[in-house]
Amino acid sequence: MTGTDTFHESLQYIQQKTKSILESVPRENIDRVTEAFFTTNRTFVYGAGRSGLVSKAFAIRLVHLGFQTFVIGGTIGAPIKKGDLVWIVTGSGETIPSVMTAEIAKKIGATLVVITGKKQSRITKFADIAIILSVDCLEKEQKQYAPLGTLFEASTWILLDGIIAELMKKKKETEESMRSRHATLELP
Amino acid sequence: MTGTDTFHESLQYIQQKTKSILESVPRENIDRVTEAFFTTNRTFVYGAGRSGLVSKAFAIRLVHLGFQTFVIGGTIGAPIKKGDLVWIVTGSGETIPSVMTAEIAKKIGATLVVITGKKQSRITKFADIAIILSVDCLEKEQKQYAPLGTLFEASTWILLDGIIAELMKKKKETEESMRSRHATLELP
Amino acid sequence: MTGTDTFHESLQYIQQKTKSILESVPRENIDRVTEAFFTTNRTFVYGAGRSGLVSKAFAIRLVHLGFQTFVIGGTIGAPIKKGDLVWIVTGSGETIPSVMTAEIAKKIGATLVVITGKKQSRITKFADIAIILSVDCLEKEQKQYAPLGTLFEASTWILLDGIIAELMKKKKETEESMRSRHATLELP
Amino acid sequence: MTGTDTFHESLQYIQQKTKSILESVPRENIDRVTEAFFTTNRTFVYGAGRSGLVSKAFAIRLVHLGFQTFVIGGTIGAPIKKGDLVWIVTGSGETIPSVMTAEIAKKIGATLVVITGKKQSRITKFADIAIILSVDCLEKEQKQYAPLGTLFEASTWILLDGIIAELMKKKKETEESMRSRHATLELP
Repeated sequence: MTGTDTFHESLQYIQQKTKSILESVPRENIDRVTEAFFTTNRTFVYGAGRSGLVSKAFAIRLVHLGFQTFVIGGTIGAPIKKGDLVWIVTGSGETIPSVMTAEIAKKIGATLVVITGKKQSRITKFADIAIILSVDCLEKEQKQYAPLGTLFEASTWILLDGIIAELMKKKKETEESMRSRHATLELP
Repeated sequence: MTGTDTFHESLQYIQQKTKSILESVPRENIDRVTEAFFTTNRTFVYGAGRSGLVSKAFAIRLVHLGFQTFVIGGTIGAPIKKGDLVWIVTGSGETIPSVMTAEIAKKIGATLVVITGKKQSRITKFADIAIILSVDCLEKEQKQYAPLGTLFEASTWILLDGIIAELMKKKKETEESMRSRHATLELP
Repeated sequence: MTGTDTFHESLQYIQQKTKSILESVPRENIDRVTEAFFTTNRTFVYGAGRSGLVSKAFAIRLVHLGFQTFVIGGTIGAPIKKGDLVWIVTGSGETIPSVMTAEIAKKIGATLVVITGKKQSRITKFADIAIILSVDCLEKEQKQYAPLGTLFEASTWILLDGIIAELMKKKKETEESMRSRHATLELP
Repeated sequence: MTGTDTFHESLQYIQQKTKSILESVPRENIDRVTEAFFTTNRTFVYGAGRSGLVSKAFAIRLVHLGFQTFVIGGTIGAPIKKGDLVWIVTGSGETIPSVMTAEIAKKIGATLVVITGKKQSRITKFADIAIILSVDCLEKEQKQYAPLGTLFEASTWILLDGIIAELMKKKKETEESMRSRHATLELP
């Protein structure tokens, strides 16, 4: 079996499309979602499948920044209350547990941020702030180089890291202060 | 509280550095790790913290491609055996459970692929194939725009998606065949 | 702060009530749910919170017995299909994601086993086989010695271990054959 | 395929042996481990496999009681510090990640509680308080009715629920106050 160029073509495709997707995010959205951390109480994140992994990576950094954070469905939980902040990541905007969680969060009176690839989806109608990550691309290339939710997930991963950098500045945190809150399993 | 440009500067920084990191991966490494899937039995992945989330995202896609895959430490497990393929993701190369897992995998006789940011680390000496993802960058910028393992994790996420595209081609899979193996929670 | 007798009173209460609960399970139910493993394809388990932990403990043993098993919502998943077996554990029978999962499983045509503390609950109407684990007890004692779902969860844990012993016999497995499928992290 | 009596024999065996195991726990141990919650800062729990599930079930209830609690290796973590309380559950007392975690916790200066089935095991030498859950039983019956760690895990599950009842009393909590801290996914 000999190598192909698919690996490099895929890397280039993902990086190029991710860049386009991220450029389309309105600055105003980022201001609103980062400011929400300073006007709400606790933060809850949720996502299913790979979107869930992306949302957990965000939660880990929020903990490093000193925000009280929970993963919905995780072992250590808390009841969502009015005044809390809920982030849900769902590419399709139609994933059943994500939509249900959004509906419940809104009824409780939480502030709901949704990151989705589909502007017209069931979940966006519940969102206080929706960040839409979508891009025009040839379907053939997308299927070959970035199957299923690949572009959405990579874009969301980087978007959330950018939001972390912004929050770090706003909250006057440093890499050192973040490291001090980092769970470790290393011999002292 | 007014917005800053940190968000956009961080996005640009992460994308630019990730690109440099990924360009430095030798083509030969990718050939070897993708071919390993066709000469070994089952695949096991492991990582701690955010590296663990990246490795789980990879595992999900491997399942979509039809490879029998386990997350070490996950609920559904199996004993690693000689002839199996083990992937470990660790930025520092020194994370204790990752190094222990590497040592055990090697003693058992599995093929061990390690993705790490540090060429000279405890884990690399156990690796059959080590993919090193590191880049020169000004420490000040890195701390501000991409604290802790951010660059390593984003690079690994995209690298593994590129490897998935390559495996998809080699195994003659399509987005449709992958979707048919996708866990869903949607009403039929 | 001095010790009280609450610890021992609680142990006795939990063990006594668990015994009563388990004695009320009809033998016929156990025959039906154990035989279902030999007439269906793959097994999926689900539960939220502590019920989810109990269902995962069951899944681990099913893997040891050689049944192909998935935890719904786990990293390594698969789409539920007609002919599969789905187990859902929910004390109240009203937990939203559990009820949704039950509804989806039934629409797909899977065989659905539900373990619940409430015979008249939303989830039981979807069940092919419902195992009801409930007991009359003085509310005051229950609140003090076994708060929230404690009795249901302890009963389910032991019930499922009894089902494992029964399946072990039916499938002619031994502790040794089970150990050979046990994930380990031990130096060889 | 016809039913056997293995199910009922197993239930009886597990309940009888669990009772014997729990009766052998010295009252003094329970006093010491429950008092430790009021003299330490945060609580961390750990276990691998089914022992990990048991320790997570304990963590959920500790959260309900209002103790700040983390699952080691969970998404939401924190660095263990001197003055924290660490609980590790391991049947064999030899599970590598459990022993490593114990060693690290002790070097940091945390108070370490270990629940294990083996008094003479690698982990007990690190423990400040070790609760030993073991029982004499005929090997043949144990293998047939309660394979692998079944007796240890069921005993630990109930032991920890008894400790919760004791803590509930000591901390003057009620089922209602616990429910108010319970994560829910129910429409209000």
